[in-house]
Amino acid sequence: MELEASTFSLKTVAQIVNCSFKEKFGTPRQGVLISESKAFIKLESWVPHGSLVGLEGFSHLWLVWVFHKNGPHKLKGKVHAPRLAGQSVGVFASRSPHRPNPIGLSLVKLESVEEKGFWVSGVDLIEGTPILDIKPYIAEDLAPSPNFGWIDNSMIPKRQITWLTDLNSVNELKSEEVLPLKNLIEATLSLDPRPVIYKQLEQTQGYKGPYGIVIDNFNVQFTSSPSGFEIVSVTSENTKPSTVHHGADHEPNGSPPHRH
Amino acid sequence: MELEASTFSLKTVAQIVNCSFKEKFGTPRQGVLISESKAFIKLESWVPHGSLVGLEGFSHLWLVWVFHKNGPHKLKGKVHAPRLAGQSVGVFASRSPHRPNPIGLSLVKLESVEEKGFWVSGVDLIEGTPILDIKPYIAEDLAPSPNFGWIDNSMIPKRQITWLTDLNSVNELKSEEVLPLKNLIEATLSLDPRPVIYKQLEQTQGYKGPYGIVIDNFNVQFTSSPSGFEIVSVTSENTKPSTVHHGADHEPNGSPPHRH
Repeated sequence: MELEASTFSLKTVAQIVNCSFKEKFGTPRQGVLISESKAFIKLESWVPHGSLVGLEGFSHLWLVWVFHKNGPHKLKGKVHAPRLAGQSVGVFASRSPHRPNPIGLSLVKLESVEEKGFWVSGVDLIEGTPILDIKPYIAEDLAPSPNFGWIDNSMIPKRQITWLTDLNSVNELKSEEVLPLKNLIEATLSLDPRPVIYKQLEQTQGYKGPYGIVIDNFNVQFTSSPSGFEIVSVTSENTKPSTVHHGADHEPNGSPPHRH
Repeated sequence: MELEASTFSLKTVAQIVNCSFKEKFGTPRQGVLISESKAFIKLESWVPHGSLVGLEGFSHLWLVWVFHKNGPHKLKGKVHAPRLAGQSVGVFASRSPHRPNPIGLSLVKLESVEEKGFWVSGVDLIEGTPILDIKPYIAEDLAPSPNFGWIDNSMIPKRQITWLTDLNSVNELKSEEVLPLKNLIEATLSLDPRPVIYKQLEQTQGYKGPYGIVIDNFNVQFTSSPSGFEIVSVTSENTKPSTVHHGADHEPNGSPPHRH
């Protein structure tokens, strides 16, 4: 006998605000790799008082969240994995955003707890992401001798970053903010955050960009070079240029920008 | 400006069947501790074909699921943690089932993959649990140098198990099934799966049981002794006696039987 699949209605308990990453394009595939990225998890007003008591004792947390930026797409059993160079894999054997239920799971590092929320680092989430649950990371979450299947991070080549502009010349940036932003930009770009379709465009048609991503309210423009990426300019979000390919406007289908 | 909390509708992708644990009462608090427990994760018919391709390469998986056996209760910011002996802690600093969204997260070990589902071990879930998502366990899920806050497993005293009955005398049990069932029963009971209220009843009124839990279709009756538990009888589910306290009938409030 086949039972009817049940439906559950779940409500946002918190939202990501003040996040290093503002757009889907350019957000890293897995955040713990980029410890420089930060976000504030702001509780919704309906969540009862006291829910964060004792949180400060934990170094890491799980965020269970919704892929709210998934565009319309046909649900498929298999997905194309950025790291499998075009090969596809079962959606439940992947952390692709295009899942039967668009649920994401992210390990984040807890930085500090405030009354209405808390700061985390190592985020691979974007501004406004709805959070469904927050859980402490506990000893039972460490798998003994795990085998990671087809997902082998050592296979990701790191791209070399060349600066064609000087962050010290950005007026809106305070001197103590220069180094953290430089590290965050380099960490983000070295992992090549471009969706597969742009990598294919480069291979087949020599497309080099320019690309634009927003990191910590700064617009970072870069082009692809044989050895990596060249950073052309960094400007405050207020002076955003309009001639640059933004992933948000050109979301290609079948190429998950990050996985969970 | 306070934004309205969004609501998301999520559909069951799979269900737990053939599980070692049939009832909330007696199900262990965290399953990885009990490697002998097993379950089959049966995909719902609406899930597209091919979703399990490549799963067999992973040793461990995440199950994101619903606490469907939560009784009616008032949502509270703080919960009583079994391991804090009556002290309370913020719900987001706990893996309590009584959460703003009743979402559970369990690490399980993958045993084998079939066409319509897969076998896992180390489960802390009960028969019929609705699954919302299945994800591979990846390297980024291993937190570097984690600190587990107030949750310290070394604080759980293991209870000694004494057998007052002989599993070999159970007619319905094949000889090769005796040892696995013995190990599973001992592992489950040694962690004291009783809700806090029964422990308090023992302390205040000397209540020793009898208790009954169902494990792998066998009804296990036991009583509390000064050093641990004494197993009085093990019978096939078909010959279930009616004079035993079953947690399912006596669910005390405020005492989570397991946490996620």
